[in-house]
Amino acid sequence: MHKGIFITIEGPDGSGKSTQVSHIKGFLEKKGYEVLLTREPGGTGIGEKIRQILLDKDHKEMSATTETLLYAASRAQHVEQVIVPALREGKAVLCDRFVDSSIAYQGKGRGLGPEAVTDINKFATQGLEPDITILLDIDPEVGLNRAKATKGADRLEQEKLDFHRRVYEGYRVLAYMYPDRIKVIDATKTVKEISEEIENKLSSVVRKG
Amino acid sequence: MHKGIFITIEGPDGSGKSTQVSHIKGFLEKKGYEVLLTREPGGTGIGEKIRQILLDKDHKEMSATTETLLYAASRAQHVEQVIVPALREGKAVLCDRFVDSSIAYQGKGRGLGPEAVTDINKFATQGLEPDITILLDIDPEVGLNRAKATKGADRLEQEKLDFHRRVYEGYRVLAYMYPDRIKVIDATKTVKEISEEIENKLSSVVRKG
Repeated sequence: MHKGIFITIEGPDGSGKSTQVSHIKGFLEKKGYEVLLTREPGGTGIGEKIRQILLDKDHKEMSATTETLLYAASRAQHVEQVIVPALREGKAVLCDRFVDSSIAYQGKGRGLGPEAVTDINKFATQGLEPDITILLDIDPEVGLNRAKATKGADRLEQEKLDFHRRVYEGYRVLAYMYPDRIKVIDATKTVKEISEEIENKLSSVVRKG
Repeated sequence: MHKGIFITIEGPDGSGKSTQVSHIKGFLEKKGYEVLLTREPGGTGIGEKIRQILLDKDHKEMSATTETLLYAASRAQHVEQVIVPALREGKAVLCDRFVDSSIAYQGKGRGLGPEAVTDINKFATQGLEPDITILLDIDPEVGLNRAKATKGADRLEQEKLDFHRRVYEGYRVLAYMYPDRIKVIDATKTVKEISEEIENKLSSVVRKG
């Protein structure tokens, strides 16, 4: 369907995604890929406006269904306007959060159910799936403390620990369901160890270099 | 499930919805109802922000799936925060556009298919359906000319006539599928004739007065 590779990185807040994202970018570039780095929610002009609505601390009244549909709307625009064109041009697309985040956060965290959230997202992505997903695995309590230490908390990060435990559980279930696609990495290891492990996992989908 | 009545009004642009909305409001109040007048997209703080994204003329790149999901997101918030609480209090809720608009505009107009758009909206509304829907029926070309004469055209109104013909067709199919709920009114009649016909149709759901 396309010549590029589509890599997503997932994990709770504080799992060290940002650090690894820039490492993966360098690794792929060394292999000869043109890399498109992008993130959800956001990634397009329309998506960034949706992101503002989603992360606004004043929107405490937002319903779980609204939240799910806004993430899906941002994703739909991202897929059509950015991700699919880049993959067609043979680029490596590295996306910080994708459908798995919605299934973990809204499906499990908010209790809407993984099936309903999966269906909404199949419509949003028109069936596009990552070639590989790196899941940085960290105990939610440890992750939250790390995240709070580095930046203020946004609307979702302010949720109670119970919520984050359900999100974590959601990620674990996804990893169990899709072992071929989702590669779980222990995020309590050193940055260097994690980077090396990610490089090993990526070698199965990297066709250049 | 609730004590109130839920009335929606639908129809292409220029079908005279606004005029009839205020007439219906007066009619229901005379019958003893407390009336909540609302509209889609919008109707809540979050919904109005989504509305701004949807109707912004600069967003020409918006994909049909994004558009559908944004309407659904606005609707989800509207249902949970405004419509359901008002119905529980026994109010008459009169809503300018609801799910039928999405099925007509995105399902038929944009060609995403009525089934997919219906599924997304079942999630958004958690199954809530209007007790009665007034569909103001007007040839799309006539309606468009009327709409242009009274105000500037927003992003959706600027679409080509072909698009508006498909939307019209979508409304006709809905009316055929749900004859008990959807009451079709010829919008080329005089304002007074239309108002009287609407009053007749509403008498089947109005329990007071």
